[in-house]
Amino acid sequence: MRIDLNCDMGESFGAYKLGLDEEVIKYITSANIACGWHAGDPQVMNRTVGLAAAHGVNPGAHPGYPDLLGFGRRNIDCTPAEIRDFVIYQIGALQGFCAANGTRLRHVKPHGNLYLTAVEKESVAAAIAEAIVSVDPELMYVALAGAKGEMVTRIGRQVGLKVVYEAFPDRAYTPEGSLVSRRQEGAVIRDPRVVAERALLMAREGKVKAVDGTIVEIEAQTLCVHGDNPAAVDLVRSIRELMAREGVDVRPMGQPD
Amino acid sequence: MRIDLNCDMGESFGAYKLGLDEEVIKYITSANIACGWHAGDPQVMNRTVGLAAAHGVNPGAHPGYPDLLGFGRRNIDCTPAEIRDFVIYQIGALQGFCAANGTRLRHVKPHGNLYLTAVEKESVAAAIAEAIVSVDPELMYVALAGAKGEMVTRIGRQVGLKVVYEAFPDRAYTPEGSLVSRRQEGAVIRDPRVVAERALLMAREGKVKAVDGTIVEIEAQTLCVHGDNPAAVDLVRSIRELMAREGVDVRPMGQPD
Amino acid sequence: MRIDLNCDMGESFGAYKLGLDEEVIKYITSANIACGWHAGDPQVMNRTVGLAAAHGVNPGAHPGYPDLLGFGRRNIDCTPAEIRDFVIYQIGALQGFCAANGTRLRHVKPHGNLYLTAVEKESVAAAIAEAIVSVDPELMYVALAGAKGEMVTRIGRQVGLKVVYEAFPDRAYTPEGSLVSRRQEGAVIRDPRVVAERALLMAREGKVKAVDGTIVEIEAQTLCVHGDNPAAVDLVRSIRELMAREGVDVRPMGQPD
Amino acid sequence: MRIDLNCDMGESFGAYKLGLDEEVIKYITSANIACGWHAGDPQVMNRTVGLAAAHGVNPGAHPGYPDLLGFGRRNIDCTPAEIRDFVIYQIGALQGFCAANGTRLRHVKPHGNLYLTAVEKESVAAAIAEAIVSVDPELMYVALAGAKGEMVTRIGRQVGLKVVYEAFPDRAYTPEGSLVSRRQEGAVIRDPRVVAERALLMAREGKVKAVDGTIVEIEAQTLCVHGDNPAAVDLVRSIRELMAREGVDVRPMGQPD
Repeated sequence: MRIDLNCDMGESFGAYKLGLDEEVIKYITSANIACGWHAGDPQVMNRTVGLAAAHGVNPGAHPGYPDLLGFGRRNIDCTPAEIRDFVIYQIGALQGFCAANGTRLRHVKPHGNLYLTAVEKESVAAAIAEAIVSVDPELMYVALAGAKGEMVTRIGRQVGLKVVYEAFPDRAYTPEGSLVSRRQEGAVIRDPRVVAERALLMAREGKVKAVDGTIVEIEAQTLCVHGDNPAAVDLVRSIRELMAREGVDVRPMGQPD
Repeated sequence: MRIDLNCDMGESFGAYKLGLDEEVIKYITSANIACGWHAGDPQVMNRTVGLAAAHGVNPGAHPGYPDLLGFGRRNIDCTPAEIRDFVIYQIGALQGFCAANGTRLRHVKPHGNLYLTAVEKESVAAAIAEAIVSVDPELMYVALAGAKGEMVTRIGRQVGLKVVYEAFPDRAYTPEGSLVSRRQEGAVIRDPRVVAERALLMAREGKVKAVDGTIVEIEAQTLCVHGDNPAAVDLVRSIRELMAREGVDVRPMGQPD
Repeated sequence: MRIDLNCDMGESFGAYKLGLDEEVIKYITSANIACGWHAGDPQVMNRTVGLAAAHGVNPGAHPGYPDLLGFGRRNIDCTPAEIRDFVIYQIGALQGFCAANGTRLRHVKPHGNLYLTAVEKESVAAAIAEAIVSVDPELMYVALAGAKGEMVTRIGRQVGLKVVYEAFPDRAYTPEGSLVSRRQEGAVIRDPRVVAERALLMAREGKVKAVDGTIVEIEAQTLCVHGDNPAAVDLVRSIRELMAREGVDVRPMGQPD
Repeated sequence: MRIDLNCDMGESFGAYKLGLDEEVIKYITSANIACGWHAGDPQVMNRTVGLAAAHGVNPGAHPGYPDLLGFGRRNIDCTPAEIRDFVIYQIGALQGFCAANGTRLRHVKPHGNLYLTAVEKESVAAAIAEAIVSVDPELMYVALAGAKGEMVTRIGRQVGLKVVYEAFPDRAYTPEGSLVSRRQEGAVIRDPRVVAERALLMAREGKVKAVDGTIVEIEAQTLCVHGDNPAAVDLVRSIRELMAREGVDVRPMGQPD
């Protein structure tokens, strides 16, 4: 029994600070590092890769749209060819900092609206997959666990990538195994104990309790956690502690046992 | 007897076109490719790396300041740590496109004011050298040939890089082997025949005729040429043709004989 | 009988040149000037406003999305509140240059995808109208002539703006008075004589010959022309000359007779 | 006896928050609002102008270099013509939001390195002054109080602007009435009581106690305060309270008695 905990990091920019990276890094095993487009800058990237390396956390790329103002959260109607090149650019830039820090990039997880669009549009999912495989076929492609992520998974595997499923312990799930929309009441679960228990169920049994109380299968090798405020960090710590108590091995995705 | 011809390329951006890359690529052997900061964008980078690969031209990175508006030509007072990370970022991004095109990045030549500042300030030259070696110690560092380039050369070699000297056949030289300032009359030579003869003298004898008529030593493994207008392309072609007629081997810097 | 000829101008950026502004300015009466977001920069804006003033051409703002890389041509999914503020910002910036050149901003015409989205989405049309009226209620709002432009017109008038209809003499029209999609064969008409005749029919009779040969009503106070290449400039000149020969008064929109 | 308290505001950008604007606004009388170049974005500008208007605080423009990454703090070697147009652009943009909020721009205070460079280089001070007067000659030009600010003051007055002197109650001064460099020990004074007393002496007597204990003349109509952290806000409040107790009228610069 093992699980990976991934968290978005390196989202500061110049004089602007975002996230409690130095805190949350202690409890996670994979870092999705912003690449300077929707967030992050070269010095932040360098520092974040160094921070990950120092904590035995695996660095991954977190590419987004060219939209610092919108933090990559709004849709930009790009062609697949553009998206492919945007992702190659960002992966490459982050690889530069991995090399400079004596480590190696391990995975790619698209950010914000790019992640959401990949789930909806096959051409975008394919553009991202092609970008990843063309730069380094050893990179893992992080995809949404559950029914909604099947297309991305299929696309990723078609080009030869290893796909890693991601689930969200602090998000409500439908009986079909999809995320409840953030716009709905109760979509985000905030009680640390409840979230930690959900994380444990996901890690140990590959299951989640849906909003209607049914237990749904959800295969996930990595769980997404947050570090943008002290409460979020507390929550990650409580997940990590529960995993330790329950004997679940928390280690980077893809790392051999 | 051999020489490399290098040219700045990939300087278009979005809807904005700059340079006659498809023409000049036929006559050069190394391309300094803009990395999206002072010029270039991901699609232009991808296309330019592909163009270079298709013509047997070696791709190099041409990093600059984060200043598209100023085309990287004006000084931005950055710290050495910032410059190091700016250069790592840009080299990495371009390496991504090299990987995606099945080729490999070969050299780094700073652009515009970053090039000029490196010649003047040891801390900047060192920041660039450290960036290069930290990403890939096999990358060649293109430095100004002549007395003015000695510091950069020394710094580059100290960190273990192979330094390649660059001379400018269309620029006037002082008797000390330095470039005549562009602000001075006659600093740029435009007669294709004269420029081609100067290129030949540089390649074959390692010499240049200075503004006072004296012949000065100038050791250079690469000559910088331009492709931003039809006349410039004609000039490159005439250099290439003269080299062929005179039996000088024109091939990428660093390539084994 | 009178008509205005409007053209997008000031689309250069830094070292990047776009458009033959100095040529086309001689034949038009209103200039839609880029405001530094999808194109243009402060120096280009200043120069273009000065150029317009020197030729008796009325300056207008041509605001777009924050997307220099995409030239404002692709959709960015912004909220109406964002769009309102984006447009206020750009109008204000251009007004600064109008003041500095002793002239006054006269109209606003959204650029590229912002123009297209305003035609489709009432919330976007309203956001633009509110931006305009909140900065200066004397500014004219340029809207698509024909059935497709009715919503924008209604919205503009609701907030108290003067709406000016714009037709495209070089574009094919459907029998319903809408533009034929650019993706269809024959959507753009390139024969200067044909285009000039169409412009004349639009100006003198408020009509256009649709693709099926029927004559359709199209009320327009301004005709959109282009200046991005020598052929386009020739076309504008031929329109202007035909108007002169036929006694149609070509003058800025909104200018008293 | 009267004094103005000015503070830099509106420095947030997209998802990035900076400054406690809602707190500090209660105690100041003039707001220097970032214009989207080194900080700020259109929505932040709109909100900040609205916030100022709601509190009877006069809005001013705080233009900076085009350098969000560097927060406008590092030198960018621009020509005077570029600087003039950069400042016109930013003033105009902010005027748009003033109009939209039913208020009027009152002053201009350059930000960061642009402020510092104006103090050192006459061509830059002149470019800024020309920008201001060309957009609106009623705008006040905020200049450094003391000997170092004399050149800027002379330049501003030459073009017909009203110049307002600014002093810094939390900064140490030399016996010559200049600011002690931030790099020196004790350059910044942090004790709220001491700073409030210094502010009072500046406001009431036009004097400051220099580092050597001598009392130096420093004519200032406005005092610069900060709002970037809770301690800074406390400090501003204590200044405001002391002024109230001591019967010094705190009101916007330029406002009639």
